[in-house]
Amino acid sequence: MRKLKLYIAQSIDGFIATEKGSVEWLNDNENEEIDENAYGYLDFYSSIDTTLMGYNTYKEIVNFGIPFPYPDKKNYVFSKNHEKKEDNPVEFIKSNIVEFVSNLKQLDEKDIWLIGGGEINKILLNKNLIDEIIITIKSVVLGKGIPLFANGTDFKKFKITKVEKFDDSFAQIIMERK
Amino acid sequence: MRKLKLYIAQSIDGFIATEKGSVEWLNDNENEEIDENAYGYLDFYSSIDTTLMGYNTYKEIVNFGIPFPYPDKKNYVFSKNHEKKEDNPVEFIKSNIVEFVSNLKQLDEKDIWLIGGGEINKILLNKNLIDEIIITIKSVVLGKGIPLFANGTDFKKFKITKVEKFDDSFAQIIMERK
Repeated sequence: MRKLKLYIAQSIDGFIATEKGSVEWLNDNENEEIDENAYGYLDFYSSIDTTLMGYNTYKEIVNFGIPFPYPDKKNYVFSKNHEKKEDNPVEFIKSNIVEFVSNLKQLDEKDIWLIGGGEINKILLNKNLIDEIIITIKSVVLGKGIPLFANGTDFKKFKITKVEKFDDSFAQIIMERK
Repeated sequence: MRKLKLYIAQSIDGFIATEKGSVEWLNDNENEEIDENAYGYLDFYSSIDTTLMGYNTYKEIVNFGIPFPYPDKKNYVFSKNHEKKEDNPVEFIKSNIVEFVSNLKQLDEKDIWLIGGGEINKILLNKNLIDEIIITIKSVVLGKGIPLFANGTDFKKFKITKVEKFDDSFAQIIMERK
């Protein structure tokens, strides 16, 4: 069965974005040019053919500017209250997210990228639908912000398969569901 | 100058204890016996001669049972409202924590272990007094609990010096203040 992978960056203190949803703190590297495959991104990106995201995460991506960054993937945006407006290669989904994702996982295709945010992460984790968590920790303390999993998340165990250090400000931990 | 090192364990989602202060989730390893120097603990422990902790953290340690685990160190417990009752090798400190720690760092001795919890971590981080953060991440999601840094923590940058994987449920990240 194809895997659902939560591939996401967070701060040392477990926040995936500022309170307003910004992830600019991820991109303040004084370093020279960033390798295209930095943090294993291209390898990961080629392992998936579908992305899932909540509406707030979608808006944050759109606000980064056009063009939409995943044009070659099947992209699903979960929202009960919003209609698609922008001309982007995404499909808005109003139906039950757990059922939708369960069905999606039955298809015999490449893996699925769970982009976030905290609310959809919580819903899918609680239902044991997340198979892999790939967390890239940026070595900053945010102090406050949007947590990796929203309020109401259950206790869950994972198994670490790999850890890696990228330059001096990113560490990546890869985990599988136990 | 001697360093102040925050050496602490947290969950994937950034909690150092459950809401009630318990850290039992750290010790549920089905694995065989744990190596005495697991997670580099003995090497770390021999690099320090002093520990700092808040009152709640102290109570949690005491509740683990006697004997007190750091008898060969100088142990300071910060509390404005509590007096020492137990017969443990600790000293209660009522004076200003920032001043006290600043003075302590001037002494020409071994490094200092900041044990926690979130409130004292916040105070010392905000004043740039934490030189090193050694975080051991256990691969569980707690969902809720006591955060690594209490509410009111400022944005701070660190530099990763080392990452390491210990068995299949712990990853350690070592960082220095930038």
